[in-house]
Amino acid sequence: MSESQPTTTPPMNHPLLASLSDASPLKSMSRDELKALSAEIRDVLCNLLATRTAHFASNLGVVELCIALHCEFDFRHDRLIWDTGHQIYPHKLVTGRYHDFPSIRTRGGLMGYPNPVESEYDLFMTGHAGCSVSTAVGLRSGDVLSGNRDRRTVAVIGDGAFPSGIVFEAMNNAGELEDDLTIILNDNKMSICPRVGSVATYLDRLRSNPYYNGLKHEVTRLLDLVPMFGDPTERLLAQMKEGVKAGLLGGMLFEELNIRYVGPIDGHDVTMMRKYLAMVREMKGPVLLHVVTEKGHGYKPAAEDPVFFHTPPAFKDERGKPVSLGSSGCPPFTVHARDAIRRQMSQDKRVTIITAAMCQGNKLEPIREQFPDRFFDVGICESHAVAFAAGQCKNGMRPIVDIYSTFLQRSYDQIFQEVALQDLPVVFLMDRAGLTGPDGPTHHGIFDIGYLRVFPNMVVMAPGYAGEVDLMLAKAIEHDHASAMRYPKASALELDRIPDEVVIGKSERIREGSDGTIVAYGAMLDQALAAADLLADDLDVGVINARFVKPIDREMIRETMSGDKFVVTLEEHAKMGGFGSAFLEAACEEHLDTRKIHIVALRDEFIEHGDREELLAEHGLGAEPIAALCREAARTQPIPVQ
Amino acid sequence: MSESQPTTTPPMNHPLLASLSDASPLKSMSRDELKALSAEIRDVLCNLLATRTAHFASNLGVVELCIALHCEFDFRHDRLIWDTGHQIYPHKLVTGRYHDFPSIRTRGGLMGYPNPVESEYDLFMTGHAGCSVSTAVGLRSGDVLSGNRDRRTVAVIGDGAFPSGIVFEAMNNAGELEDDLTIILNDNKMSICPRVGSVATYLDRLRSNPYYNGLKHEVTRLLDLVPMFGDPTERLLAQMKEGVKAGLLGGMLFEELNIRYVGPIDGHDVTMMRKYLAMVREMKGPVLLHVVTEKGHGYKPAAEDPVFFHTPPAFKDERGKPVSLGSSGCPPFTVHARDAIRRQMSQDKRVTIITAAMCQGNKLEPIREQFPDRFFDVGICESHAVAFAAGQCKNGMRPIVDIYSTFLQRSYDQIFQEVALQDLPVVFLMDRAGLTGPDGPTHHGIFDIGYLRVFPNMVVMAPGYAGEVDLMLAKAIEHDHASAMRYPKASALELDRIPDEVVIGKSERIREGSDGTIVAYGAMLDQALAAADLLADDLDVGVINARFVKPIDREMIRETMSGDKFVVTLEEHAKMGGFGSAFLEAACEEHLDTRKIHIVALRDEFIEHGDREELLAEHGLGAEPIAALCREAARTQPIPVQ
Repeated sequence: MSESQPTTTPPMNHPLLASLSDASPLKSMSRDELKALSAEIRDVLCNLLATRTAHFASNLGVVELCIALHCEFDFRHDRLIWDTGHQIYPHKLVTGRYHDFPSIRTRGGLMGYPNPVESEYDLFMTGHAGCSVSTAVGLRSGDVLSGNRDRRTVAVIGDGAFPSGIVFEAMNNAGELEDDLTIILNDNKMSICPRVGSVATYLDRLRSNPYYNGLKHEVTRLLDLVPMFGDPTERLLAQMKEGVKAGLLGGMLFEELNIRYVGPIDGHDVTMMRKYLAMVREMKGPVLLHVVTEKGHGYKPAAEDPVFFHTPPAFKDERGKPVSLGSSGCPPFTVHARDAIRRQMSQDKRVTIITAAMCQGNKLEPIREQFPDRFFDVGICESHAVAFAAGQCKNGMRPIVDIYSTFLQRSYDQIFQEVALQDLPVVFLMDRAGLTGPDGPTHHGIFDIGYLRVFPNMVVMAPGYAGEVDLMLAKAIEHDHASAMRYPKASALELDRIPDEVVIGKSERIREGSDGTIVAYGAMLDQALAAADLLADDLDVGVINARFVKPIDREMIRETMSGDKFVVTLEEHAKMGGFGSAFLEAACEEHLDTRKIHIVALRDEFIEHGDREELLAEHGLGAEPIAALCREAARTQPIPVQ
Repeated sequence: MSESQPTTTPPMNHPLLASLSDASPLKSMSRDELKALSAEIRDVLCNLLATRTAHFASNLGVVELCIALHCEFDFRHDRLIWDTGHQIYPHKLVTGRYHDFPSIRTRGGLMGYPNPVESEYDLFMTGHAGCSVSTAVGLRSGDVLSGNRDRRTVAVIGDGAFPSGIVFEAMNNAGELEDDLTIILNDNKMSICPRVGSVATYLDRLRSNPYYNGLKHEVTRLLDLVPMFGDPTERLLAQMKEGVKAGLLGGMLFEELNIRYVGPIDGHDVTMMRKYLAMVREMKGPVLLHVVTEKGHGYKPAAEDPVFFHTPPAFKDERGKPVSLGSSGCPPFTVHARDAIRRQMSQDKRVTIITAAMCQGNKLEPIREQFPDRFFDVGICESHAVAFAAGQCKNGMRPIVDIYSTFLQRSYDQIFQEVALQDLPVVFLMDRAGLTGPDGPTHHGIFDIGYLRVFPNMVVMAPGYAGEVDLMLAKAIEHDHASAMRYPKASALELDRIPDEVVIGKSERIREGSDGTIVAYGAMLDQALAAADLLADDLDVGVINARFVKPIDREMIRETMSGDKFVVTLEEHAKMGGFGSAFLEAACEEHLDTRKIHIVALRDEFIEHGDREELLAEHGLGAEPIAALCREAARTQPIPVQ
């Protein structure tokens, strides 16, 4: 783990990166040039990313792996999938996107994940973990069927993503199909937090096997004897020895599934990796190459604290000086939720908390410290997380499942069968519900109202402001059926009121108004109140904090719809099947005239990355466009009969 | 595999079963009595189930396993999860439900799956595969936290369900938590069809290992020396020998995940199984006991053709005489879909078909024969199936993913990320969309409109009658974005018309009418036309075949809503987020008065098993209730202004 040097400020020039319009020149670069290239990449990462929030440590860890891959394959023709995709930066830098790189994760700029729209080198937009092996098996199958057998397929997957169930499903299929396929297991001992589970322990055993360092050099020597495009018999010999080594070193978990196991090898040694990649590239059937990398490699603070440096906030200013990491503004919903969880766990020994590798993102570290016995990190295994919670719940516990809205999609079927159908009082907290900003479409959580409210027995709710979070969670724990609470990645609105209680199925009027009503679901209350303020000189608009989409407050609906004044509904969610749709369904059942309803929600499209406020405004969910809509609605009411 | 005898007709009496009000007497039964009990169970299965459609061969296979389990545990206190659950019949028979057993799978009678409402012996209503290990890990965790450590937890999972990703996720977690847990792998070499994948091959190796039969008897002899509740040292000795045996025999796939592997053992030898169960019951940490059973055991025709006898139609009459298996009525949608698939595959070499172990249910056997290279059965791995399809699609193929509506829920996140977000033209066929009848709530497919139409880029459609199926699939293959077509487990309506073409987003008027309109989504067209016929003397009601819920036909909506006549929408789907809701959303955007809309859909509840027609009528979706609603709607229109 020695090839790269720690980066130093001030930033250097990047002549090699600047010269690359695609990755093909890497093939003919000397060892020294590749070394210089990796230093340039690290320099870009350390200096540019230090000034903004971005995925950091994981990208530092794959610099050499990325270089070695582009040396041994041509991914304009060959197929490469980066699983989970946030470690895509070195790949972007060497595939002609160096000059655009400063725009990364900003509106209209490069995406922080692979993006086929940007480059022919990117195949799948990946942000959810574990699917790379499946898509790679499918890609290879397509090539076999369409006669493109010369094209290679590579999936790069981290050890954090590896225990995801779909990887097992993919290996089960790949081992049967026996199509050629290279799976690179990028083992850096981490998810965002340190990895968990027995697969992790197994990988540790493979790494710490005494044969690893002992045999490695002998195998390397053997491989050195084998010309890279050399004699087939010699290559076969080397492959056989690899097989023997696999038997000696372990790898049986893969071998038993008919996936050849090769490794582990040092993922920061480009030369060695190139030899191994050249070898596995020629092997028949599915092969897994176990590559050991260090998350944060080459930047000491990141290597020492890869959890913090997974997606750190800006830690240097434009001149490279460290900045303080103090937080500003109101605390985010996530912190209020964490504090509410702590209160529930302190009061009630039945309460447990389950996370799927998002301890850090959900700010649960203090909970893990305080309640180690009732804290469960199951790894990136959302399906299991929910079924596991159902089991705990059946035996009398009150589990809280704390998963980002978009990742809870991976548990759809377990929410259906294991929770809702059994009518178990599992509590779901959906953090990052809404637009997540710079992460973009794989991470926005904009479908959860739609997928949760269809299930019988479910309560689906959202706090509008900070003071409600604790009461709402308390109500959820007390309730004898399943419930789900969503909140965005945003500061929680702080109001001067602390509600006495939250009643299931009841909304709360925040502001009286005689000219029309804005009904806001969840955090859109902030925008609703701001719009009402903007309008104050012209219109007297009431504001309701809806709180519940299921059960929806029919009394509120009848009341707001009783006159001829307009009703605007707001939600940070896809329009189809969302809060407005639920409002309409109820209004229709109540035989109310829905022509006065105006639903404002996210348009039916995948929404790119960008600033959350900016994106909201663009979809009509900012204070200004809401106010404009209210003015227009007031102007045209009462609605003429057709 | 010799303890039980083939069943003979006529039916025998069942004195042992009749005497059981719970399973506790099994513990004190002699070997001969247990043998007699297994014969009684088989007799019930062979004689009663022969006269109706029910899960058959899988139940015959677990008779001895079920008996042995109830001998060694007390599942009123201990915890038992039957994965997938259709092999629950022997369990129901020995836990006090013999007298109710003739009602199984009929309306108001016993459910064909575990049902906590029926018995304290049933914990989870299971119908979707693979979740038992997760829930068992959760159950055990709950017991550990609440101080119920003396309670045992057992999950029984078939080899067909085993490759489901969530099992891997659960093992990853169980291997880390190290809580005591018994996983019984019921290995009968089958899903519904013969199992597939490299896990299957691996299990075959374990079974065919020469040590299996050689060592087995020695281990048995050893176990015989160990008293069942005997000296701890001796038990430890036996456990150590088991460990050695596991190493010799394989099982490394499990051992590497820190799950102790024991087996394989003969799943039709009650005495041996009891000894093994008594042993694993006392072992620390998670243990997997590999039990080999024969699907259809004890009834020769079923053992010889377990695919047909998985859920055979009635094959004997009430007097035990064989009946002919000719089909009656119009062919089901499934057959029309299969024929349409064949046509597409014949015309277009890019078209592939992917099933998740439902080759038989989807009637795809002839496709498998005709196009072996483009037919893919990936096992009960729906998540992988979809991501695999996305990979094929990216490389130029046109995959059709043919999965029951309820099981496609397991791919929610892959439909989101791997298909819709990448805008890939994967075609989804959702068979069993709607009420599946006797299978009940785990199998009804009543949420698919809701979960699919929220995704950008998706076309969501349903044929109303047989003649459309082929055209609709052709359109889907031709279309450059993802599409999904749903149809129920029902005969397809045959109309005298063959449509010229199907245009995406366009409905079809089937019947003119001046007093109001019924807009039917999919197979509800049948009921709509029947209702219009019933009404013909009183009212002139038009009928529209909606075809598409996304994109929905706005021109049709404007047209049907243009006067003051009522509009009734029909769908075999949950009301929330369904077709009616989409209709309302569009009507609201068009500023139409929705007070004339009446949405008929399934109520917000989990719907029990029963006859499909009967259940539909109960939810207002029969011709009679639809006609009654139309009469009422006509009577009250035009709707008075509030």
